[in-house]
Amino acid sequence: MAAGKDIIYMDHAGTTPVDPRVLDAMMVWFTGRFGNASSIHTLGQEAKRALDESRETVARILGCRLSEVVFTSGGTESDNAAINGTVAALQPTGNHIVTSSVEHHAVLHTCQYLENMGFDVTYLPVDRFGMVDPGDVVQAITDRTILVSVMYANNEIGTIQPIQEIARGVKDRARTMERTVVVHTDAVQAAGFLPLNLRDMGVDMLSLSAHKFNGPKGTGILCIRRGTPFLPQQLGGGQERERRSGTENIPGIVGAAVALDLADRERERTSAHCAALRDRLIRGIQERIPGVHLNGHPTLRLPNNVNFSFDHVEGEPVLLGLDMSGIAASSGSACSSGTLEPSHVLLALGQSADLSRGSLRLTLGRENTVEEVDYVLTVLEDLVSRLREMPSLSPAGS
Amino acid sequence: MAAGKDIIYMDHAGTTPVDPRVLDAMMVWFTGRFGNASSIHTLGQEAKRALDESRETVARILGCRLSEVVFTSGGTESDNAAINGTVAALQPTGNHIVTSSVEHHAVLHTCQYLENMGFDVTYLPVDRFGMVDPGDVVQAITDRTILVSVMYANNEIGTIQPIQEIARGVKDRARTMERTVVVHTDAVQAAGFLPLNLRDMGVDMLSLSAHKFNGPKGTGILCIRRGTPFLPQQLGGGQERERRSGTENIPGIVGAAVALDLADRERERTSAHCAALRDRLIRGIQERIPGVHLNGHPTLRLPNNVNFSFDHVEGEPVLLGLDMSGIAASSGSACSSGTLEPSHVLLALGQSADLSRGSLRLTLGRENTVEEVDYVLTVLEDLVSRLREMPSLSPAGS
Repeated sequence: MAAGKDIIYMDHAGTTPVDPRVLDAMMVWFTGRFGNASSIHTLGQEAKRALDESRETVARILGCRLSEVVFTSGGTESDNAAINGTVAALQPTGNHIVTSSVEHHAVLHTCQYLENMGFDVTYLPVDRFGMVDPGDVVQAITDRTILVSVMYANNEIGTIQPIQEIARGVKDRARTMERTVVVHTDAVQAAGFLPLNLRDMGVDMLSLSAHKFNGPKGTGILCIRRGTPFLPQQLGGGQERERRSGTENIPGIVGAAVALDLADRERERTSAHCAALRDRLIRGIQERIPGVHLNGHPTLRLPNNVNFSFDHVEGEPVLLGLDMSGIAASSGSACSSGTLEPSHVLLALGQSADLSRGSLRLTLGRENTVEEVDYVLTVLEDLVSRLREMPSLSPAGS
Repeated sequence: MAAGKDIIYMDHAGTTPVDPRVLDAMMVWFTGRFGNASSIHTLGQEAKRALDESRETVARILGCRLSEVVFTSGGTESDNAAINGTVAALQPTGNHIVTSSVEHHAVLHTCQYLENMGFDVTYLPVDRFGMVDPGDVVQAITDRTILVSVMYANNEIGTIQPIQEIARGVKDRARTMERTVVVHTDAVQAAGFLPLNLRDMGVDMLSLSAHKFNGPKGTGILCIRRGTPFLPQQLGGGQERERRSGTENIPGIVGAAVALDLADRERERTSAHCAALRDRLIRGIQERIPGVHLNGHPTLRLPNNVNFSFDHVEGEPVLLGLDMSGIAASSGSACSSGTLEPSHVLLALGQSADLSRGSLRLTLGRENTVEEVDYVLTVLEDLVSRLREMPSLSPAGS
């Protein structure tokens, strides 16, 4: 294995390690300063201050007010709450939701559930690069539309959506129609690579997940701009200004804020570093392995995302072969890995089910090196060639 | 301050410090072994094994199957999901819920929300000790009842409900009526002090929160017995056998399981230790301070709970005075502290709003000592006496 490390980790879209600086910041809140932020005694007030400071950090980076930041248990809760909270509040004015066919399951399955409850959902198509057309979004809006939810960057193929243009189009259209149409974006994969300023983007709601940017698992952020219709989805002690009840996970929240701050400060450097490795990986695969198809947009893609489909090769043996060589990669999203279902994202690009099953996602992080990329290229070239020669796995031999 | 410690912590019902053994077990999962449990590579499979082992530990202690354990983000999510998940599944068969008037807000506010959505909710009264009558529960069941949710032990006053008798009564009645009536119990405050065997209790669903038993904040458990009608409330990648989507918080889950295991092993010792301190505190307050009223049941109460109302004294200055003497205590639940609302639990006991505002909750833990109890008694006696002499705070002087 390269660089003397145990594992070459190229599954950063699945999850990331907690940054040691983040963990350092979290530690004191587990034991010494463990108070409940709702308690009025000193330990409680210390926790409350940590919560306030974390909120300030997040608000600064997202360009929003303190009161607009809600801490949640992760990206899935943020996405679920954004959709269900909006829909509950706006139900009297309409029952139509617009989203894309390449969203994360946290959005898609919530929309499908709402369809069963009588809502209408438009799942917009994407082009062959996975891109949503902003014109399609605007055209899909009817006099029953209450919510548009389009992701900022795709978790599988890394395609970056024109979210600013989408938000502007929707808002203009809604203004003309004298309707309230909430715009939500799942920015879970974008954090650490793309700018997250809410006002620049023009969206009303934005979801983040800390473990995707070297923060802890179990903490997410939902930003809800002032005036956005929203009914809370988790009820109880009234924490987070009544928008998300439950004792605040102070170590997790502190960790999320510190991680977001570091990700923001180091964003340009990390992006440049990853983009160089990404391009080396893409070129290397295209030059060394025949019968490969790059999934996602050639340029408008996350700096750390590489996704290929291989002719005549299944994804699972590739992943296992890489794993045996000490390389951690993924087929589609982490959530779908291990299933035999073809990726809904690749199918939405118009790819055949056969080819979709053979996709490989390599997602880079700041710790990855040129040596690791070159090692992966060598292993992958050899692996794909050997798999294609195995009669049982090659259509030519069956 | 006693015992050379910075703070005498007597707010264990609010939250508890993470046990150093728990934190030790969690540490490796933040950085070195940080995989996503849904990934098929080695790092992912390590995380999956940690998840499986944590589930085994929890299932052993709760006396349930592995498949019956669902990890959540905390007690509030568990309570919300238990109620909303049951109601969503059983809505075609009825719209009536039975609960008590002394539940945690995570249960009460969820029920109140459902009332707004057209459900009928019976909030059963309690006796002057905060006890629900199992006969009342059974009598409340109608041919529209789908759910009974009664807490195991109260978070404010520590009263232990006859949950086994309630569950048996409901199940017998439901059988006679040939109906499915799900029984849920919020056991958040009971963990570490009372037995948690699900089959012995006879309930279908049980909620726990790790930070109440020296585990981490942000992790809860919802036990759902096989065959219990339930629709998932958080949708996405299909984690937790489709019952709770979202990337599993492995450090939190490992911590919750280790903490529950330790709490279970040390339960009798901790309970005996706390009960002795509790009784010393109760006797001391009753002997040294006039005009005090013990809230909750004299004997059927949590071993660590002390709750008093004081004539002619507001709760907040007592808490602040204790805090200035290095004692962390609470007025009502942590979630309600800092509000001027009288406790809904004390009002349900028939206490006047005036007296309810003056309650003090001292909740003990295994680290507390006799010396600390005696110090608290001395401080409290002096504090209440001084507060009663201040003209502006005494009704006699106004």
